[in-house]
Amino acid sequence: MSTVNSGLVHDLLVELDRTGPLPLHRQIESALREGIRAGRLPFGSSIPPSRRLAAELGISRGVVVEAYDQLVAEGYLVSTPGSYTRVAAAPEQIVTEPAAPPSPGPRIDFGYGRTDAASFPRAVWLRSLKRVLTTAPHDRLNYLDGYGVPELRKSLADYLTRVRGVSATPSQVLITSGFGQAGALVLQVLADRGGKRIAVEDPSADDDIRPLAVRHGFEVVPLPVTADGVSVEALERSDADLVMLTPSHQWPLGGVLPAEARAAVVRWARTTGALVLEDDYDAEYRYDRAPVGAVQGLAPDVVIYAGSLSKTLAPGLRLGWLVLPPHLTSAVAEAKLLADRGSPAIEQLAFADFLVRGEFDRQLRRMRPVYRRRRDALLAALAEHLPDLEPTGIAAGLHAVAWLPDDLDEHAVVTAAADHGVQVAGIAPYRLTKPGRPGLIIGYSSLNEAQITEGIRLLAEAITTMLPATSATRAEGTPAGAGRRAR
Amino acid sequence: MSTVNSGLVHDLLVELDRTGPLPLHRQIESALREGIRAGRLPFGSSIPPSRRLAAELGISRGVVVEAYDQLVAEGYLVSTPGSYTRVAAAPEQIVTEPAAPPSPGPRIDFGYGRTDAASFPRAVWLRSLKRVLTTAPHDRLNYLDGYGVPELRKSLADYLTRVRGVSATPSQVLITSGFGQAGALVLQVLADRGGKRIAVEDPSADDDIRPLAVRHGFEVVPLPVTADGVSVEALERSDADLVMLTPSHQWPLGGVLPAEARAAVVRWARTTGALVLEDDYDAEYRYDRAPVGAVQGLAPDVVIYAGSLSKTLAPGLRLGWLVLPPHLTSAVAEAKLLADRGSPAIEQLAFADFLVRGEFDRQLRRMRPVYRRRRDALLAALAEHLPDLEPTGIAAGLHAVAWLPDDLDEHAVVTAAADHGVQVAGIAPYRLTKPGRPGLIIGYSSLNEAQITEGIRLLAEAITTMLPATSATRAEGTPAGAGRRAR
Repeated sequence: MSTVNSGLVHDLLVELDRTGPLPLHRQIESALREGIRAGRLPFGSSIPPSRRLAAELGISRGVVVEAYDQLVAEGYLVSTPGSYTRVAAAPEQIVTEPAAPPSPGPRIDFGYGRTDAASFPRAVWLRSLKRVLTTAPHDRLNYLDGYGVPELRKSLADYLTRVRGVSATPSQVLITSGFGQAGALVLQVLADRGGKRIAVEDPSADDDIRPLAVRHGFEVVPLPVTADGVSVEALERSDADLVMLTPSHQWPLGGVLPAEARAAVVRWARTTGALVLEDDYDAEYRYDRAPVGAVQGLAPDVVIYAGSLSKTLAPGLRLGWLVLPPHLTSAVAEAKLLADRGSPAIEQLAFADFLVRGEFDRQLRRMRPVYRRRRDALLAALAEHLPDLEPTGIAAGLHAVAWLPDDLDEHAVVTAAADHGVQVAGIAPYRLTKPGRPGLIIGYSSLNEAQITEGIRLLAEAITTMLPATSATRAEGTPAGAGRRAR
Repeated sequence: MSTVNSGLVHDLLVELDRTGPLPLHRQIESALREGIRAGRLPFGSSIPPSRRLAAELGISRGVVVEAYDQLVAEGYLVSTPGSYTRVAAAPEQIVTEPAAPPSPGPRIDFGYGRTDAASFPRAVWLRSLKRVLTTAPHDRLNYLDGYGVPELRKSLADYLTRVRGVSATPSQVLITSGFGQAGALVLQVLADRGGKRIAVEDPSADDDIRPLAVRHGFEVVPLPVTADGVSVEALERSDADLVMLTPSHQWPLGGVLPAEARAAVVRWARTTGALVLEDDYDAEYRYDRAPVGAVQGLAPDVVIYAGSLSKTLAPGLRLGWLVLPPHLTSAVAEAKLLADRGSPAIEQLAFADFLVRGEFDRQLRRMRPVYRRRRDALLAALAEHLPDLEPTGIAAGLHAVAWLPDDLDEHAVVTAAADHGVQVAGIAPYRLTKPGRPGLIIGYSSLNEAQITEGIRLLAEAITTMLPATSATRAEGTPAGAGRRAR
């Protein structure tokens, strides 16, 4: 490395490495920035004219001018016509946060609601992004409306009609940043229209609709769920303005709402003037049975259909959609516009390209056997290590529920599992009416078969160390329930 | 094109083109899909076993199996083990919307608040996307928190400290989908904490804070704006819980809040316990004067800083940020999580890469002279064609205000301009307290110099045809105010 130092240059601590990869002007910028930050070049002090510094460094003046221009642009220097360039007013010292110590984390995480992030088709998605950035009209980069880009509304209407039996024209499709926002928009419009009561499945997810409903002042009515899905009798008694359903794979119990119940839900909505919000959250993954179409296809006038990429491509994309009855479309679009002025255009266009080229179908086709094998590994491991646990909701989706024997306390099992390095959720936290049958929600989509088998083995170990009592606390020193597995 | 037809195949209307670019299995898929859609293959009817169709078509069985698998995946066919594959339940006919007839649109659009979409650095942005998709850890594609990806929070804290004099650690930075959402989150948290009154500049933008404030039930207090920015005296009398300011370039009038007024705003906030929301919406474009740092740098304890890419890269990216006083960070992150579960990860990471590599600085440096030339063209055209109009707010930003002589009615000028093919906004729609001095808001950022000159020439023509009266309606048939330009 050959460096140059001289009087003035030495003051500025400019050291040029003429053989390194960094252009000379970047080296000057960096030296001056450092000098200003460190206080060697005090605020308001003048820096040498570009001609003089260039001469001292033995480089062309243009290089120095480029560096000064950049620092002026960045606010480090101030250039006043007819005067010296000076160091600008104080930028605060950059304070970097101390990094949090990495938490150990569970050895096996049966967290639900994940895709296998490692299977995200990065190269294919990049190709779609590239096509979009190469071909999209400039206007698509400008402000958006609250509906979404027309390319995606069209290709989604096409896809959902074809694959999910949804009845949709592009004008009914509205792009959201996922189910959470979709629910927020629908509830806001419903609140504006005087809605009072929301019926939800019990148990159901507690992170979207339920907190939003509370925030909007809705009364939340729980509807019991059986192996087949929600109780329609309870719905008919609910006096709700909207019911939130997961008919193709009830979350978390996994039931599929039978045809008669679907017809009854539609009848209820039409008779009472209520709406149905259908969360088609993992309909794309079905393993052992024929596909079940969306309820929306039966009654597009009263059913709001919601879907997203969170369970099929990646939650980090934040891309979802609503198919709305025509009379709701403009109100929801207005709410979306006020909430965030539309979802990012480039990713919408990329997904439209991905859909139209058949890449989405291809990705689902690729992942279905992968997830199926993982589910099969889970069922095999449960049968081997925990035969007393009864799996349910396994025909589709990315998780299974395993019912616990009644004498095992759910919370205690979850805690014991965590102690054995296994993260698994109970059902109780998702119930609105307690207590209920104890069970575990076991997500298998982001673990490979070996991890799944190991996780269930560890879970069995954890359960073996537990008392067969129903107490929520572990009684240390008491003989462990080793007979558990033998029963 | 060589095609094959035979008995069964003929029924299915499968025509194979063995010389074309489409793979055989795609051709089969497409033919069957068409047959199902058109009703030639009725729902529930069985389709031939793959072996038989393959034999009839003289192709390998694997090709047919691949086609059937795809159609099963798409829901067109249902495959039952040990039985024939059948046509599935009815997907609705796809109905495509008739395209709306293209509206003629203005010849010259002086709309404000735009970037030059044609200058978006598509290739460089794509390189950042590519690096992200090649290198980002899988976890970044999973569910996010309400704060934003750490890479971007760090690089933004760095950038804003360096360039805008903001005082920020990464922990105070929160990623939003632009200023609209940033405002929505802040107002929601303020409402939750019992805020009652929001002070805004008069005139000010009417599309974000003001409608949101009304939605949350806040009282909106207008503060008069002079050439220097907001009236601090009015602020001190406002009894507001939060004031929304554009101190570096008041929107729309373009004033820069002087140092004493900034200090007074901070004093007011600290004395009353109120907050300041600083919208630094186009601080990056300054042409004739030294950069003015953000007010937040003076008082990070009471000022919430908001910025976005909408005026620097592209509104369609939907990427913005807040720098929050530490006591507000977690509440705003919670609101963000409930609103949309975080902004899309890939674009956040791409912008972090873009920032760290100096591409953002480079893009701003590239655009500054472009916009400056456009502004100069606007000023020259105004001086030549409309010398009676007084430009203001021209030292920075992407638009100018031109005051109209008092005897010209603003609305009438806007209407006459539209009749002459020129889209331009008046100030009146943005005022809370009417009336005020008449003027035009002239955005120049997305027009080239020739278009700007032509637009001002047309505007002058429009004004020439007007009466010099102050009536808001045009009196047809009265001699036109041809003397206007001569005065």
